[in-house]
Amino acid sequence: MLPTFFTSETASNDVVERSFTVGGVSGLLWTPASPSAGLPLVLVGHSGGTGKRAASVVERARRLVAGGFAVAAIDAPGHGGRPLTETDEREVAAVRRALRASEPAGSIIARYTADVAERAVPEWRATLDALLEQPEFGDGVPVGYFGLDMGTGIGVPLTAAEPRITAAVFGRFRHETLVETAGRITVPVGFLLQWDDEQVDRQSGLALFDAFASREKSLHANAGGHRETPSFEADDVVRFFTRHLHVATAA
Amino acid sequence: MLPTFFTSETASNDVVERSFTVGGVSGLLWTPASPSAGLPLVLVGHSGGTGKRAASVVERARRLVAGGFAVAAIDAPGHGGRPLTETDEREVAAVRRALRASEPAGSIIARYTADVAERAVPEWRATLDALLEQPEFGDGVPVGYFGLDMGTGIGVPLTAAEPRITAAVFGRFRHETLVETAGRITVPVGFLLQWDDEQVDRQSGLALFDAFASREKSLHANAGGHRETPSFEADDVVRFFTRHLHVATAA
Repeated sequence: MLPTFFTSETASNDVVERSFTVGGVSGLLWTPASPSAGLPLVLVGHSGGTGKRAASVVERARRLVAGGFAVAAIDAPGHGGRPLTETDEREVAAVRRALRASEPAGSIIARYTADVAERAVPEWRATLDALLEQPEFGDGVPVGYFGLDMGTGIGVPLTAAEPRITAAVFGRFRHETLVETAGRITVPVGFLLQWDDEQVDRQSGLALFDAFASREKSLHANAGGHRETPSFEADDVVRFFTRHLHVATAA
Repeated sequence: MLPTFFTSETASNDVVERSFTVGGVSGLLWTPASPSAGLPLVLVGHSGGTGKRAASVVERARRLVAGGFAVAAIDAPGHGGRPLTETDEREVAAVRRALRASEPAGSIIARYTADVAERAVPEWRATLDALLEQPEFGDGVPVGYFGLDMGTGIGVPLTAAEPRITAAVFGRFRHETLVETAGRITVPVGFLLQWDDEQVDRQSGLALFDAFASREKSLHANAGGHRETPSFEADDVVRFFTRHLHVATAA
């Protein structure tokens, strides 16, 4: 018998996937088939132009669940089949034009993402409210956030606004629209950059890392282009959350 | 019965430590008590003002041996009780004066280290020749180098000159005296910086990372001062060498 919150459930390779809807926004929760008590929760934000079922989201969920975490993802506004506003349509067209012309799309993406984030942050917070009412999460369950690209553009204002998020991994994003908000974040931060990123200017990415007020923050910059983050970084993200969220559970 | 190359041997906690001397330079070799065949070798360079028995060297050796590596360390010229040249004495005094006066010592340290490195590189190469003749190392054993601070000032020219070193971890050093040599290094490089390093200017450290010609290179920059590199980075160095040296063994 499914609790009414979850609308479907599948299981494979020791991972249980359940779908849910909060305020009209559909999401997925992945948990270990045999979860231990006090399971920490990591919210995963997808990149632009994808959705909660993007291969990168599912792959992160698989690794995090294997590491003893629950993982939740929702579709951002205008993503994953959700309707586009006029602004969404105009901005998406502008991004596509720039990419087709091999022109720098970074500042258009940053402007568009800031608009999406204003709508996405309250949706994530409502989702978190609803998830933490489920019986698998006790009081004071540690919560983390992990998102690159647009997932950072949404995750930085979300983490600044949401005191329940106590550790976060961001990256591959410019500083201009986020630097002020990043300066209000004090929780441990992991940050991923690509040293030869053709979309994110190196100094701008470094400036965003610099902006976080966190006492504990770690930058990982790897040689290669925007989409060439090495797969070993995904395992390192699991270790990052193990250090910061599992420790909180034990305390 | 000890082979004649090694002059003493002790063992504790599954680590065997043996001392040796090559060309008047004394060194230590740490190996697992029950080594597997094709044991990769990591050369560890100590920081300025210390020697082969520095706590940081012994701690790295302990973690690397537990990860299935042999580790060797030697005293740099003028270090670990070795005699000082007139240049050494003058430069060490200049560094101490600067540090006492809380003045930036980085450029003095870089100049002094370049002088030490000219003498240290042939010593390391002779040590490697001698070690690889020992029966625990077969033909084509993978060799790595790991050194921060002065260990980078010596390790960069060593790695550029020594084709047997196929992966290296450096860090916490300025770029000026090393940038040209770093541009001749193409093996995988790990690089550690401290984001708030009071001794190594941030942009200068980033410029050194940028200078390596390696297709595979990863920068880890952590919040905090020169001596505050988090201990989890030592475990990550073991994973770096496992990726790059154990893979070579299996090939």
